[in-house]
Amino acid sequence: MSRFFSSKYSNLVPYTPGEQPKDMKYIKLNTNESPFPPSEKAIAAALEEAKKLQLYSDPDCTDLVKEFCEVFGVEKDEVLFTNGSDEILNFAFMAFCDDDTPAIFPETTYGFYPVFAELNHVPYKEIPLREDFTINIEDYFNAGGTVFIANPNAPTGIALTPAEVRAIVENNPDNIVVIDEAYVDFGTESSVPLVKEYDNLVVTQTFSKSRSLAGARLGFGIAKKELIQDMNTIKYSTNPYNVNRMSMAAGLGCLKDEEYTKANCQSIIESRAFAMEELRKLGFEMTDSKANFIFVKHPEYSGAKLQAELKKKGILIRHFSKPALDEYNRITIGTKEQMQALIDAVAELLGR
Amino acid sequence: MSRFFSSKYSNLVPYTPGEQPKDMKYIKLNTNESPFPPSEKAIAAALEEAKKLQLYSDPDCTDLVKEFCEVFGVEKDEVLFTNGSDEILNFAFMAFCDDDTPAIFPETTYGFYPVFAELNHVPYKEIPLREDFTINIEDYFNAGGTVFIANPNAPTGIALTPAEVRAIVENNPDNIVVIDEAYVDFGTESSVPLVKEYDNLVVTQTFSKSRSLAGARLGFGIAKKELIQDMNTIKYSTNPYNVNRMSMAAGLGCLKDEEYTKANCQSIIESRAFAMEELRKLGFEMTDSKANFIFVKHPEYSGAKLQAELKKKGILIRHFSKPALDEYNRITIGTKEQMQALIDAVAELLGR
Repeated sequence: MSRFFSSKYSNLVPYTPGEQPKDMKYIKLNTNESPFPPSEKAIAAALEEAKKLQLYSDPDCTDLVKEFCEVFGVEKDEVLFTNGSDEILNFAFMAFCDDDTPAIFPETTYGFYPVFAELNHVPYKEIPLREDFTINIEDYFNAGGTVFIANPNAPTGIALTPAEVRAIVENNPDNIVVIDEAYVDFGTESSVPLVKEYDNLVVTQTFSKSRSLAGARLGFGIAKKELIQDMNTIKYSTNPYNVNRMSMAAGLGCLKDEEYTKANCQSIIESRAFAMEELRKLGFEMTDSKANFIFVKHPEYSGAKLQAELKKKGILIRHFSKPALDEYNRITIGTKEQMQALIDAVAELLGR
Repeated sequence: MSRFFSSKYSNLVPYTPGEQPKDMKYIKLNTNESPFPPSEKAIAAALEEAKKLQLYSDPDCTDLVKEFCEVFGVEKDEVLFTNGSDEILNFAFMAFCDDDTPAIFPETTYGFYPVFAELNHVPYKEIPLREDFTINIEDYFNAGGTVFIANPNAPTGIALTPAEVRAIVENNPDNIVVIDEAYVDFGTESSVPLVKEYDNLVVTQTFSKSRSLAGARLGFGIAKKELIQDMNTIKYSTNPYNVNRMSMAAGLGCLKDEEYTKANCQSIIESRAFAMEELRKLGFEMTDSKANFIFVKHPEYSGAKLQAELKKKGILIRHFSKPALDEYNRITIGTKEQMQALIDAVAELLGR
């Protein structure tokens, strides 16, 4: 830290991204990326834009928004695109939390929420999950602050039903509820349709997972017009050109190829079922994940050791050292072949 | 504004980006873009990455940083890449300004500085330019806060010499000086070499102008390691994957084609000299711009009217309604052909 760094941020502990090996020799099951390349339509659209990079991108993302509205059934003033969904989440922390309105989220969830709270100097309250890692929705009724819930949750993969989300939204009439649907496309019902009904709901999603655009950084928020306007006030005061031309075009290309997205999601769902079944046979316990990752532990093999030993075998998975989670590992669902390689490696480690 | 918007931001007045027409039929001289397409090497590199977008980008920008250090003669821990230079500027406002350390900048400069100050709730002081739009450097000696100076300045294009920058840096030993070099490559000497000497200097630049990557959003800051670390604390608490794969690769491609960049800059410098000479013949007065724009007024033709009339003729230029500037227009320097079209149109409007 320099002698000039503002004391406002001197205690900030940044988020730790998952390991990103440079050499590509690993089977990468540690950062919840898609094993499938982006849609050919996304690639082609990005290429077209690459030739026009001397011109600024459209701050309003007009073309992308237009296509998006058709696919998602929302109005153009009900969506805001950002540089990854981390940016829309940060905008929501900025716009809807302050000294009088704390952020409220599960104790076990996306590790960035407490960082956003610290960054923005807003008080926050972490609510423990139940023993089985499920969310007790009543813990969030009349929460007295802005509620952030990842659905499905991370790193457990456990999803709430739309009725449960609705109950949380209805029971916080004077506060915003943000539903972070980064992993929604792998078997969870989206709360996007609820946006039409409630003026206190923000749904965020990303093109990083189901649409294979992690490296393009494209996320979005859906909410009623007034809430989008508030977050646009933040955006236009922070980085009006926050989404670059190529990522905008790639996103549009994806939306014109929703069949590809759906087929990839279906493939992940099948690989997940396969991996869960095989790992259960090997003695693993796991949550009921609806995400493109599973959250598993073995009664006779420590989480940290499994992560370290698999790395030696060329397979990366994610281990969290937080006490409640440290017996577990989060394993991204890849192709069926990648899952088979994982299972073979794990079986060998277990001596089966 | 919604009933949920934090009062922290309710008075925020966002930055207004220049007009971005969707139909491309204008000669666009309003947002300081390059008239030249990006380097073929940049385009090719971006295309390669488009195929790998399912993988996250490298938060450390390792490959880009490596090439950058060779070109710029700095160490890898002395640079930080961001989503456009607006993001590095915001990081500097966050890291180095607070209630005890106001932001200090010219009254006439990049219009985003006061927005960043308001966004971050830091006090700020705007120092008037001299009558002739030059900066009196002594106004910034022992300024008692973090100094932000665009060099060359916007929208005047007037540059400080390295000796003048050095004097400002030396006379603020206990505060950061940020030199915003967005337009440095068109004839201003960079202050990057001074970074080795001073622990209180941050230099920011962008790939948007001289490297034709406005639409890719790629900016950077150069400073001593400790200052970069401070801004990295902000980055990793805001958006670790802030630069996407394609823009990172495009930037690297540009750095491998510096001859192209230099040739384009030289071409702009020649077009600027041509445009200034011809506009002077038509009776315009102007500042001594070292940027890829000129700042001109005509004693017999109002700035607002010129902007409006040129738009009717298919040429966009930028007019600022701020009282001190409203007689002027900022005109981006394009190709010689575009400048000729501008001059012809202006001559017609003036009845010459």
